[in-house]
Amino acid sequence: MAAEVEIGRGKSGRRAYALDEIGIVPSRRTRDPEEVSVAWQIDAYRFETPLLVAPMDSVVSPATAITIGQLGGLGVLDLEGLWTRYESPEPLLAEIASLDDARATLRLQQLYAEPIKEELIGRRIHEIREAGITVAASLTPQRTAKYYKAVIDAGVDIFVIRGTTVSAEHVSGRAEPLNLKQFIYELDVPVIVGGCATYTAALHLMRTGAAGVLVGFGGGSGHTTRTVLGVAVPMATAIADVAAARRDYMDESGGRYVHVIADGGMTNSGDIAKAFACGSDAVMVGSPFARATEAPGRGYHWGAEAHHGEVPRGARVDLGTIGNMDQILYGPAHVADGSMNLIGALRRAMATSGYSDLKEFQRVQVVVTPH
Amino acid sequence: MAAEVEIGRGKSGRRAYALDEIGIVPSRRTRDPEEVSVAWQIDAYRFETPLLVAPMDSVVSPATAITIGQLGGLGVLDLEGLWTRYESPEPLLAEIASLDDARATLRLQQLYAEPIKEELIGRRIHEIREAGITVAASLTPQRTAKYYKAVIDAGVDIFVIRGTTVSAEHVSGRAEPLNLKQFIYELDVPVIVGGCATYTAALHLMRTGAAGVLVGFGGGSGHTTRTVLGVAVPMATAIADVAAARRDYMDESGGRYVHVIADGGMTNSGDIAKAFACGSDAVMVGSPFARATEAPGRGYHWGAEAHHGEVPRGARVDLGTIGNMDQILYGPAHVADGSMNLIGALRRAMATSGYSDLKEFQRVQVVVTPH
Amino acid sequence: MAAEVEIGRGKSGRRAYALDEIGIVPSRRTRDPEEVSVAWQIDAYRFETPLLVAPMDSVVSPATAITIGQLGGLGVLDLEGLWTRYESPEPLLAEIASLDDARATLRLQQLYAEPIKEELIGRRIHEIREAGITVAASLTPQRTAKYYKAVIDAGVDIFVIRGTTVSAEHVSGRAEPLNLKQFIYELDVPVIVGGCATYTAALHLMRTGAAGVLVGFGGGSGHTTRTVLGVAVPMATAIADVAAARRDYMDESGGRYVHVIADGGMTNSGDIAKAFACGSDAVMVGSPFARATEAPGRGYHWGAEAHHGEVPRGARVDLGTIGNMDQILYGPAHVADGSMNLIGALRRAMATSGYSDLKEFQRVQVVVTPH
Amino acid sequence: MAAEVEIGRGKSGRRAYALDEIGIVPSRRTRDPEEVSVAWQIDAYRFETPLLVAPMDSVVSPATAITIGQLGGLGVLDLEGLWTRYESPEPLLAEIASLDDARATLRLQQLYAEPIKEELIGRRIHEIREAGITVAASLTPQRTAKYYKAVIDAGVDIFVIRGTTVSAEHVSGRAEPLNLKQFIYELDVPVIVGGCATYTAALHLMRTGAAGVLVGFGGGSGHTTRTVLGVAVPMATAIADVAAARRDYMDESGGRYVHVIADGGMTNSGDIAKAFACGSDAVMVGSPFARATEAPGRGYHWGAEAHHGEVPRGARVDLGTIGNMDQILYGPAHVADGSMNLIGALRRAMATSGYSDLKEFQRVQVVVTPH
Repeated sequence: MAAEVEIGRGKSGRRAYALDEIGIVPSRRTRDPEEVSVAWQIDAYRFETPLLVAPMDSVVSPATAITIGQLGGLGVLDLEGLWTRYESPEPLLAEIASLDDARATLRLQQLYAEPIKEELIGRRIHEIREAGITVAASLTPQRTAKYYKAVIDAGVDIFVIRGTTVSAEHVSGRAEPLNLKQFIYELDVPVIVGGCATYTAALHLMRTGAAGVLVGFGGGSGHTTRTVLGVAVPMATAIADVAAARRDYMDESGGRYVHVIADGGMTNSGDIAKAFACGSDAVMVGSPFARATEAPGRGYHWGAEAHHGEVPRGARVDLGTIGNMDQILYGPAHVADGSMNLIGALRRAMATSGYSDLKEFQRVQVVVTPH
Repeated sequence: MAAEVEIGRGKSGRRAYALDEIGIVPSRRTRDPEEVSVAWQIDAYRFETPLLVAPMDSVVSPATAITIGQLGGLGVLDLEGLWTRYESPEPLLAEIASLDDARATLRLQQLYAEPIKEELIGRRIHEIREAGITVAASLTPQRTAKYYKAVIDAGVDIFVIRGTTVSAEHVSGRAEPLNLKQFIYELDVPVIVGGCATYTAALHLMRTGAAGVLVGFGGGSGHTTRTVLGVAVPMATAIADVAAARRDYMDESGGRYVHVIADGGMTNSGDIAKAFACGSDAVMVGSPFARATEAPGRGYHWGAEAHHGEVPRGARVDLGTIGNMDQILYGPAHVADGSMNLIGALRRAMATSGYSDLKEFQRVQVVVTPH
Repeated sequence: MAAEVEIGRGKSGRRAYALDEIGIVPSRRTRDPEEVSVAWQIDAYRFETPLLVAPMDSVVSPATAITIGQLGGLGVLDLEGLWTRYESPEPLLAEIASLDDARATLRLQQLYAEPIKEELIGRRIHEIREAGITVAASLTPQRTAKYYKAVIDAGVDIFVIRGTTVSAEHVSGRAEPLNLKQFIYELDVPVIVGGCATYTAALHLMRTGAAGVLVGFGGGSGHTTRTVLGVAVPMATAIADVAAARRDYMDESGGRYVHVIADGGMTNSGDIAKAFACGSDAVMVGSPFARATEAPGRGYHWGAEAHHGEVPRGARVDLGTIGNMDQILYGPAHVADGSMNLIGALRRAMATSGYSDLKEFQRVQVVVTPH
Repeated sequence: MAAEVEIGRGKSGRRAYALDEIGIVPSRRTRDPEEVSVAWQIDAYRFETPLLVAPMDSVVSPATAITIGQLGGLGVLDLEGLWTRYESPEPLLAEIASLDDARATLRLQQLYAEPIKEELIGRRIHEIREAGITVAASLTPQRTAKYYKAVIDAGVDIFVIRGTTVSAEHVSGRAEPLNLKQFIYELDVPVIVGGCATYTAALHLMRTGAAGVLVGFGGGSGHTTRTVLGVAVPMATAIADVAAARRDYMDESGGRYVHVIADGGMTNSGDIAKAFACGSDAVMVGSPFARATEAPGRGYHWGAEAHHGEVPRGARVDLGTIGNMDQILYGPAHVADGSMNLIGALRRAMATSGYSDLKEFQRVQVVVTPH
C-alpha cells in the first residue's frame, strides 16, 4: 500500500509528505469550539494545552518556562544553552539580537564554545521549580551520562533527551554510549526522547521505556538539515509512521501508550492542527514563541544546530515580535496568518471537523494537495 | 479508483485537486459562442447568468444587490454585516478602505462587534425588494434561529444559510442547535446552504430539503483557512464529489435535483469555467466583483472570516478597481487576465469545447496539469 | 495505460504533461551534429529547416516572410492582420511598440477593428511571391469561406487555416459553417489546419484531407487561454496524442501521412527539440522570432487572441531584440538561454542523443521530470 | 516496477528524480562522525576524500590541482582550457572576472578560440607532477586521439575523457571516431570516462575497460543544457541507474568493479551526501570550489559548455568567495548553507544515518519529497 517509487534501477524510496502538502477534511458533523477538549496527559502530568515549547535559548529561559507553565503548556529548558554556560546570559542574548546576518553564525559558535557549568544546571532548574509548575529540561544524548545526576538532583519532573537524531542503538568505538534502556529504567522521572522519524527507529525508542518520543529533527524554522546533510523526512509521513509504531508497541507491550510528540517544522496553527490529524499526542514548537514579547531572543530565533562548531545546520532568523505568550496561545488574534491564538485555532479546526478531543481528532480525514 | 495515497503507516488520504491544477479539453466539435446558453434555474427562479455574488460587505450592499439582479445575476446580502449593524455604513466602508494593512484586522473586529439590529434586517430586504428583483440574503447557522422570522417576514425569495462549514448535524451541549431539516421544511422559500466540501456532508445537507448546496469554505480571495486551521479541500475535487452526491441523492429521493453551487476560490473566468466543468450548476463569487466601480469596498475585499473576533482567517486585500459590474459580467474586456467579461469567457470556453448548455458542459473532458 | 486520475467522485481526467515537464534522454550512441539532417518535406515542398513562423503581425510581414523563406524556413502571413487591413501598417507597428502596457490591449482592439480589404490579400501574397520562395498564408475558419478565393487566385502555395480551436465539425445555427472536407478537396493547394489538441479532434481534421495539422492553441508567449477560458492541454501530451492519430489515420487511409506541427508554447530551442521528441514533424513558433532585429514588432510580441474585441486572451509582451533571423536560426549564439541558433541546438540535441534524422528522433527516449 | 507514465498516446517515459527531490532517511542506528570512513580507492590510487574537482578553468589550475591533491582529493586539469592555449592565463582569468554579464559569453568564445599548444599539455602535467601528488587531466573524446600521447608521455596517473555525452559508439561519417575500447586497452593508466546518464550507455562504457564512469552531463552550476538542448536526466535517477549497471557489469565481467562518479549538479553538501545515497562511489564537483579563495576564477564559474563557439549551453556565473579549499572541504563552517565543510557534513550525514563507510551508505533508505 505504501507509495514506493523507483528512483532508478538501483534505488527505490517511498513518497513522503510534508505537513504543507496535506489538508484536513471536515466530517459531516460540526461542534462548538468551546466544547472541544485539547487537554493532554503524559505520565502523572496533565496539561490543558498539548504544547511543549522547544529547548532553544531564543524561546525558553527560566522566566519564560514559568510563563509557559502558568499558561498551561510545558516549556523545556535547554541545559546545554546559554543559561548553563553563563551566570548572566541576558547581555549575550541582547548581543545576539544585534548581530548582522553575516556574522551571526560565527558569533553563536564562539558564545556556545563556553563550557557548561554543572552548578548552573541545578540553579536554573531550581529557579523554575520555585514557581510551582511542572519542570522539564533537556540534554543531548552525548552529555546525558555526564549531567543527568545534576538534573535529577535538582528535581526535574520530565526529562527530555533531544538531538538531531537519537537512536536506541548508538555505535561508538571511543566511549561507552548511553544505554538508553537501562538509563530510563533507573530514573524515577518520565523521559521524552528524540528526534526520530521512522517507524523502526521510533519502535526501538519506545522499547527503551520512554514516556514520549519526539518526531522530527528538531531545529528552528531556520534549519537547513536538508541542504547541509541531505537528510529529510517530511513531517506528515514521519508522524503517521511513528503513530503506527505507537499502536504496534502498545500491542507488543501489553498496553503501554508512548506519546508521540511532533517536534519541529510547525510554523503556524494550521501546521499544528495537521500534526494532530496525522497522529500526534502533543506538539513541540519553537518559532511561534520566538515571536512573543517575552521571548529571550527578542524576535530572533535559533536552535542548537545553528551554533554547531563544525557543521552548523541552521541560521539565526529574524521573526519579529507579534504579541505576548498568552495571546499567541489563546488570542484573540489580530492577524490572520496562523501565528496567534494557536489553541483557539486548534479548537476551531477540531470543532469544524466534528471532533471533541485530540485522540479522536487523530482519525480525521485528510487529503493530499500541493500548496 | 480514487487516488488514495499512504501518507504514513498510520494515515492515508486521497489526492485532491485544486481548480488551477486542471484544464478543460475541447471536444472534436466547436460552436458559436452566441448560440451557447448559460441560463440557470433554481426552484421558480430563472437567471440568465449562473452567478451568485457572495454575501460579503465589500461586494454586496442593497444597492449593488439591485444592480447585480438587474444584470441577470443574484447578489446575496449578508444579514450579519455592516448593513444590519449600522444605520449608515457608508462612512465605515470608506474608513475600511483607508486603513493601513497592519491595523485592518483589528479595526474590522471592532466594527463588526457592534450588535445586529433586527429592525435593519427587514429594512435592507425591503430596499432590495422595491427594485423588483429576486431577493436573496444570508445568515450563519448560529444566528438563523434567532433572525429567520424577520427575514421571511420581510419577503426574501431565496434564503441562504452560509458558514465556513455547515453540517446537517451540529453537536452542541449548550443550546439546541438549528434543526436544518425541520427548519427548511417549515419555510416557504427555497434554501441554499453551505459550505460543505465532501460527498457525505453534501448528501446530508441535500437530505435536509435544501434547494442548493454551497461547495467550499466561502471566504474572499484573502482567506487563510489552510494556514490558520489546516483545513483544505481543493475545489475541483470538492465540486466533483458534491456533484456525485447530487446524482446519488436524486436517485435516492426519486428525482429531487439539488443545485451544486461552487463558492469561493474562483478569481478569474477560467476558474469559473472549470467549476462548471467539474459539475457546478452555478457559482458564487466575491473577489471578481470587489473590483467593480460600484463595489462598496472601493477595491478592497474581505469576508466574514476576516473579522472573526478570536480566530480571524482572512485579510482585507487590496484588489483595485477595473470596470463596472456590467463590464465585469459581459465585457468587452480590455485586459486579458480573466477578470472581465466573465460570462463572455464562459460562453467562449463552452463554445470552443463544443457544448451548448451548462448541464452538458459538466461532462466536458478535463486534464490534470500543474500550473 | 493512460494515467487517468480521479479528480472527484463525479469526474476523472488524464494527467497531461507540458514540454517543460519532460527531458530528452540520450541513447547509447552519439553522432556528429554536422551529419544530422533536419530537413522536412510536406507535399511537394521541401524545407532545410523544419520550422514555420506563426502568422502573427509581430513576426511575419511580407518582408520577413521572404527573409524566413530565404533562410530555409516557412513564414506564414496572417491575412487577417494589419497587412490586409491597412495600406501602410509600418507606422501602426511603430505605435504599438510605443504603447504603455495598460493601454496596449485597448489600442490593439481599436487597430484590428479596421475592416479587412480583400484587395490587400492579393497584393500581400504577390509581394511575397515575387521573391521566388514558397508562399504560405493563413485565415481563420470564420473567414475562410469569404476570402479563400482571393488567396488562391493570388497564388498561395500552402494554405493555413488557423484558430484557437479548429474542429472538423463546427455547429452553428446562424450560417452554414465551413465544410472543411469539401473545401480542402476542391482546393489545389495543400492545407494545414488547426489548432487541435486531442487524438479525436486531430483524427477528424486528418480525415478532411489536410496535409498537416497544427497542435496546440496557437497564441504568442503572452497567451492567457488557461486563465481566461480554463482551457489547457499541455503540449507534450497534445503532440504525442496527435502523433498517435497520425499513425492510426495512416493505417485507416491506406498510407496517407498527415504532418503534425506543434504550434505555440515553445520559447527556446530545448522546447523545440522536445516537440520533435514527442512526435512533431515540424514546429510553428512565434516568440523566438519576435526577438529578431527584422521583426515587425520591434521586440514586442502579440497574437490574434490579444486583440479579440470581446474576450482578449493574451497580452502584448516585451521580449526585446537579440540578433537577426539568420543568427536566431543558425547562430553562432552568444547567449546560452536557447534563444539563438535554434537549428544548431536541434542538431546537437539529435546528435548527442544518437539520431540522424527527425523521423527517427521522434522515437528518442524521454523522462518526466519537474522543472 | 519502474514508474513509466504515459505522456500521450504515442509516447511514454519514466518519471525521473533530481537530487533535490529526495531525502536521506536515518536508520535506527547512529554513529560517531569521527568513526566514519569516507576513503575511496580507484585502481591503485587511494584518496582520503572521495571527491574529484571538475576540469574547469574556474576551479582547477596546476596550482589548485596541487592544493586539492594535498588536501586528499583529486583535481582534474582541463587540457583544452586556458592553460594549454596560453603561456600565461592569469591575466585572462582576471579579465574574465571583470567582464559584465552581457559580454561574458562572447569574450569566453573568443578566448577559447585560441588553438591548443601540444607543448603546453606536457608542461602543465609536469608542473602538477612535481608536487608529488596523483595527477589527473582530461580531454574531450573529439581531441583524445590527437593529444593522448602527449598526456601519457607527460606522466598522467588518471586519464579522464569527458564530454557532455560520451558514448562507446560514436557514429561519424567524416573521421574514424575514437575506439574507446581499443584505446583504453592500450593505455597503461586507468581511464575515467563520461558523462553518461542511462543504464545502457553506462554499461557500454564499462565494457570499454574504463576504471570509472562519470554520471551526468557535467557542466557548472550555470549550465543550461535543458533549456538549450532539451536534454535532461535528473541526477538521482541517473546515478541509481548507472549503479545498477555497475552491479550487472560486475556479474557479467566476473568481478570487475567500475566506479560510478556523479558529475555535476551538486551544489551543496546535502547534494553530495544524496549522490552517495543513490549509489555513487565518488563525486566530481565544480561550483563548490569556485567559491574558494584560491580558485582561478576569482569567485566566477564557467564550464566548457559556456564557451562553445556555436551553441553555448552555460553561463559564467558569479558565486562569490567564502573560504579557502581546506575550509570548504573540512571546515569548520561559519555558514549553514552546505557550502563549507563538505566532508564534515558527509561524515555527519553518514553517522546520523548509522553508516560507517561509503559502500554501505549506498544502501541508506531515501524518500521522495518535493522541495
